[in-house]
Amino acid sequence: MIKAGIIGGTGYAGQNLVWLLSRHDKVKLEFICSHNNTNTPFSQVYPNYMGFMHDVCIDIQSALEKLSLIDVLFIALPHGKSFDITQQALEAGVKVVDLGADFRLKEPGLYKLWYGLDHICQELLSSAVYGLPEINKTSIIGADLVANPGCYPTASILALTPLLSESLIDPQSVIIDAKSGVSGAGRTANIGTLYCECSDSIKAYGVASHRHTPEIEQELSRAANQQIAVSFTPHLVPMNRGILATCYGTLSKTVEQNTLYDLFREFYQGKSFIRICNDIPETRWVKGTNICDIGIRIDKRTNRVIVISAIDNLIKGAAGQAVQNMNILFNMNETDGLELLSMVP
Amino acid sequence: MIKAGIIGGTGYAGQNLVWLLSRHDKVKLEFICSHNNTNTPFSQVYPNYMGFMHDVCIDIQSALEKLSLIDVLFIALPHGKSFDITQQALEAGVKVVDLGADFRLKEPGLYKLWYGLDHICQELLSSAVYGLPEINKTSIIGADLVANPGCYPTASILALTPLLSESLIDPQSVIIDAKSGVSGAGRTANIGTLYCECSDSIKAYGVASHRHTPEIEQELSRAANQQIAVSFTPHLVPMNRGILATCYGTLSKTVEQNTLYDLFREFYQGKSFIRICNDIPETRWVKGTNICDIGIRIDKRTNRVIVISAIDNLIKGAAGQAVQNMNILFNMNETDGLELLSMVP
Amino acid sequence: MIKAGIIGGTGYAGQNLVWLLSRHDKVKLEFICSHNNTNTPFSQVYPNYMGFMHDVCIDIQSALEKLSLIDVLFIALPHGKSFDITQQALEAGVKVVDLGADFRLKEPGLYKLWYGLDHICQELLSSAVYGLPEINKTSIIGADLVANPGCYPTASILALTPLLSESLIDPQSVIIDAKSGVSGAGRTANIGTLYCECSDSIKAYGVASHRHTPEIEQELSRAANQQIAVSFTPHLVPMNRGILATCYGTLSKTVEQNTLYDLFREFYQGKSFIRICNDIPETRWVKGTNICDIGIRIDKRTNRVIVISAIDNLIKGAAGQAVQNMNILFNMNETDGLELLSMVP
Amino acid sequence: MIKAGIIGGTGYAGQNLVWLLSRHDKVKLEFICSHNNTNTPFSQVYPNYMGFMHDVCIDIQSALEKLSLIDVLFIALPHGKSFDITQQALEAGVKVVDLGADFRLKEPGLYKLWYGLDHICQELLSSAVYGLPEINKTSIIGADLVANPGCYPTASILALTPLLSESLIDPQSVIIDAKSGVSGAGRTANIGTLYCECSDSIKAYGVASHRHTPEIEQELSRAANQQIAVSFTPHLVPMNRGILATCYGTLSKTVEQNTLYDLFREFYQGKSFIRICNDIPETRWVKGTNICDIGIRIDKRTNRVIVISAIDNLIKGAAGQAVQNMNILFNMNETDGLELLSMVP
Repeated sequence: MIKAGIIGGTGYAGQNLVWLLSRHDKVKLEFICSHNNTNTPFSQVYPNYMGFMHDVCIDIQSALEKLSLIDVLFIALPHGKSFDITQQALEAGVKVVDLGADFRLKEPGLYKLWYGLDHICQELLSSAVYGLPEINKTSIIGADLVANPGCYPTASILALTPLLSESLIDPQSVIIDAKSGVSGAGRTANIGTLYCECSDSIKAYGVASHRHTPEIEQELSRAANQQIAVSFTPHLVPMNRGILATCYGTLSKTVEQNTLYDLFREFYQGKSFIRICNDIPETRWVKGTNICDIGIRIDKRTNRVIVISAIDNLIKGAAGQAVQNMNILFNMNETDGLELLSMVP
Repeated sequence: MIKAGIIGGTGYAGQNLVWLLSRHDKVKLEFICSHNNTNTPFSQVYPNYMGFMHDVCIDIQSALEKLSLIDVLFIALPHGKSFDITQQALEAGVKVVDLGADFRLKEPGLYKLWYGLDHICQELLSSAVYGLPEINKTSIIGADLVANPGCYPTASILALTPLLSESLIDPQSVIIDAKSGVSGAGRTANIGTLYCECSDSIKAYGVASHRHTPEIEQELSRAANQQIAVSFTPHLVPMNRGILATCYGTLSKTVEQNTLYDLFREFYQGKSFIRICNDIPETRWVKGTNICDIGIRIDKRTNRVIVISAIDNLIKGAAGQAVQNMNILFNMNETDGLELLSMVP
Repeated sequence: MIKAGIIGGTGYAGQNLVWLLSRHDKVKLEFICSHNNTNTPFSQVYPNYMGFMHDVCIDIQSALEKLSLIDVLFIALPHGKSFDITQQALEAGVKVVDLGADFRLKEPGLYKLWYGLDHICQELLSSAVYGLPEINKTSIIGADLVANPGCYPTASILALTPLLSESLIDPQSVIIDAKSGVSGAGRTANIGTLYCECSDSIKAYGVASHRHTPEIEQELSRAANQQIAVSFTPHLVPMNRGILATCYGTLSKTVEQNTLYDLFREFYQGKSFIRICNDIPETRWVKGTNICDIGIRIDKRTNRVIVISAIDNLIKGAAGQAVQNMNILFNMNETDGLELLSMVP
Repeated sequence: MIKAGIIGGTGYAGQNLVWLLSRHDKVKLEFICSHNNTNTPFSQVYPNYMGFMHDVCIDIQSALEKLSLIDVLFIALPHGKSFDITQQALEAGVKVVDLGADFRLKEPGLYKLWYGLDHICQELLSSAVYGLPEINKTSIIGADLVANPGCYPTASILALTPLLSESLIDPQSVIIDAKSGVSGAGRTANIGTLYCECSDSIKAYGVASHRHTPEIEQELSRAANQQIAVSFTPHLVPMNRGILATCYGTLSKTVEQNTLYDLFREFYQGKSFIRICNDIPETRWVKGTNICDIGIRIDKRTNRVIVISAIDNLIKGAAGQAVQNMNILFNMNETDGLELLSMVP
């Protein structure tokens, strides 16, 4: 039985971790730490847990004192808040899966540039592993610190890596137009995400400036084996969950749509959470699951390929991927606790 | 391993049965019959099942030919369509859980009055059992034909039975003001349930004339041990799932709110799917689960009690309760396959 | 040209006043005061006003200094905040329409009981007029201070007054089960009204304790010519605007539905904003208008009448009714600036 | 007083025409023709019109017999249905604004290719004018037949024309990623647009194959003065109204963002319905209006410009633009009947 702790357990990502771990046969959740809800029963913050979860949220000091009890620590905090906690956990021999942004970028300069903070834990950057298992599983095995990918990067990188690693598209032609549900903005009192401010409307935000851009570029550059820059535009959609990434690239050679389908199917062969779909995916088909659905279309008239990927931003884009990484770290089946079928409608 | 078949498997209730049975350890789903989608792979009708379900929908004739292969048949058809199928299944020694309305009302005259059809299968009415396990479990054990309750009746009866069976409210004072998500209207092409016709609005419908009224009255009369009539007003709410029933009754004696809480807790002691909540329930806390949440308030100024119950109309109000009934029929744990925790947000 | 000022102009009610007044031919808006957005252009707070409105929000001190410039002051503040401002405006000879709760209840004891505050302006209570023009127009003419009704009371009182004033229902049998869109909660950063916390769900709140209860009772008691108590249960519905009030009463004599329709049509004859509907109303038919739609059903089996009213909570339930009151105060046509036809879908 | 008739008046676009014309001071609506609702009072199809509109819908034969009574005919029918009616109207000396697709494409071969129908009215194509007044007003003056633009083309062309006509972007680099509310799918009973099938989800559709593509290309080619091909991807968003078009182009020279803002402001100077916004637009700011909001961002890292436009698909994308065209045809103010300010929330 793997013993786990969660820091930041009452945000949407953290709560989804609780949801997933509470149904994971091989994991025992030792504690939930929440700054905003210290000493409050978790089932009072989220009443759906009544009868399912009896834990009371603890504070960070108590959490750190319990490090010796656990094998793995999940951190679901805003950027800039994980440095110290990660270091203490690693020193205590606890593996860390950080759902935040602090260990995703290999270049501390990029971190400073996009997040506006000095990276005060650079010595851990080289050992931190970018935890996108479909691309990176070998490095995750044996790691101590996994930087869990962002939600937009997960959808984008899974959609584009097969094309870039096979040099099928011009690496500088990539445009990612992504759409997210409101839960991506977190559970923070904020006028902009009030029901009346974002229902029945759509908007773009962070145009040409969103912090997930360098993360996407870092991983796509690795796939393309050259430094690339992408245009990335996120949008806010009136739905609770889900990301749809509509990705555009200019084909670098003539290729049939079927050939691309074959390529994607081969590239992701044996990857339990990837479904290559003949139809164009909708976010509802993956809601509540760790699955990434991918559909492909060639636009012959413009010589472009459009790859559309759909994930649940809180599962495959956060908590589910974190559990998948934990499964790999502890040599469990990658799908343990993640055999989730979307509920419709 | 219990072997099951579903008739009407691609409507919302039927599909939720597939969803539940596909995660039930002790049940094998032998076939899915769908009139509208015969010969279509189920995962084409509902692409979320890609990789989870490989069945192709069969027609009714083929389904009837497979009766000898199964132990239990779930029927999820509009009213008036279950008579013949039920008879054939029973004759073949197959237990039947009918999610439709055809065997719920004990009085064929009431059926004729409210549904506008002659009941052509009256000989089965006496053996049919109303399948609300929290009230009726003893009768369900050993039954061959279970009439699965309607969604509104489930929420209403669970909210009011403790009060009526203890004679705590005037039996003729009951008003049930209920609110349902749109999935209650089924998966039928219909202008009234288009997104643009029911989003961002609320309406009442079937005022003083909804077909669930006699069903509610039949079961509440049994609890009250006298014939009662209720006012029942359903509303359509812009949400996918969920029923909230706000139930009013005039107190027949002075009683404290805490006393009522004690009464409800005792009445439902050991019932896994009932949660008596100190806070007033919201439908999202039970979405995707077989749970009925119940909150109670006394309005001293008017001498009324308000009981508010919340269920998922497609689970506790349909498919989940059907599985619960099956579990009882075959002597499994009542919660098998139904340990469901709501996913938020 | 009537000159008007608004205090609290960037909340939802206040902003709707701006929206309405900016299309009113006979009114000039002299200033918008906003505590939260002082010195910010109104069109920056609400970018839909770009090109339509060039005002910059001013602070309360500046607003009070401008009292001499205006004929009427609209106050859209939380309860307890209007006392002093109202007094100063009246002293300056400015008529006041208060959209808040401070002058609605005639009994200061009730105000203290339900709002938890001492009423420090009791000397104005006798002259304050409850501004529901369909019931009360004669008193509004000539008033200096109009207490604009709450949203729930507006819908409830309009639905029930004809029955109570004609003694057609038992006055102690009234139950009001009301449903509101989220804008009723105001434009305040708050976890409970985040998109992810209230979409796809419904809940009751303030059960047997909502502050609009005494206001409803005060006016219904006047209609019934006796002191009555009502059960009032508000619900939060995932929609932006709208209130649907489902009102129940026990008939005190045998009466046909058509007779009630005749009664309502006669009672509201000549009232431009009341529509007596043969079909049961939906909130979307009155969204963005000052109209109250009313439908009536008799439930013969239980001897009850169900009256269902629909309004836009921000227009007829707030800003529109305030404009209607202003029109009456200044002897304009009651419908000036309020000829609004709902936009669908 | 201009006299108008509408054919197809109960679809969403047609009904919005009714809404707009009923508030237009200089227009009298002579008849509403509806195939699906012949002989039904319009206010029964859309109960919000109760008390506002007393017309009964007529059939097509009756409509054609009334051609002599009107000055202008609006046709809001599916493609392929306007040919004959247009011809008869023109012969009767009635000006025609066709909201459908039948006269938008100048090349009948393209019509055949994308719509799958022979164009049986080619003799009218040369005189038909593409009715996008901000680009094309001079041609509209004096026209007899106006082809009202599609919703996606309106948003796309307005966003991109300034850049292409000034040769600021590579004409072959254009990608348009567009998002529409559900009303774009029309008021037809259809499983795909049921509330439960499209709420809380997003999907792309018609990828590399949507019929608005050739229309966009025709007009952008005109602006670029060369034949261009674009990638156009529409998406379905869970909202009633609105289109957001996120348009990408590669800059052909180095230019500052402010310079582009100056260019757009100059290009659209005096155009009442275009707002060049410093902030990135949201569809809710233009909902219910004839306005197109445009925001611009340069992504220096990729040398691309992103132009984001927002319209109401049923107003500026259909009925509002039709009224604007009528205003021009009859020498009225372009804004008559269209001074619409969005209502929020």
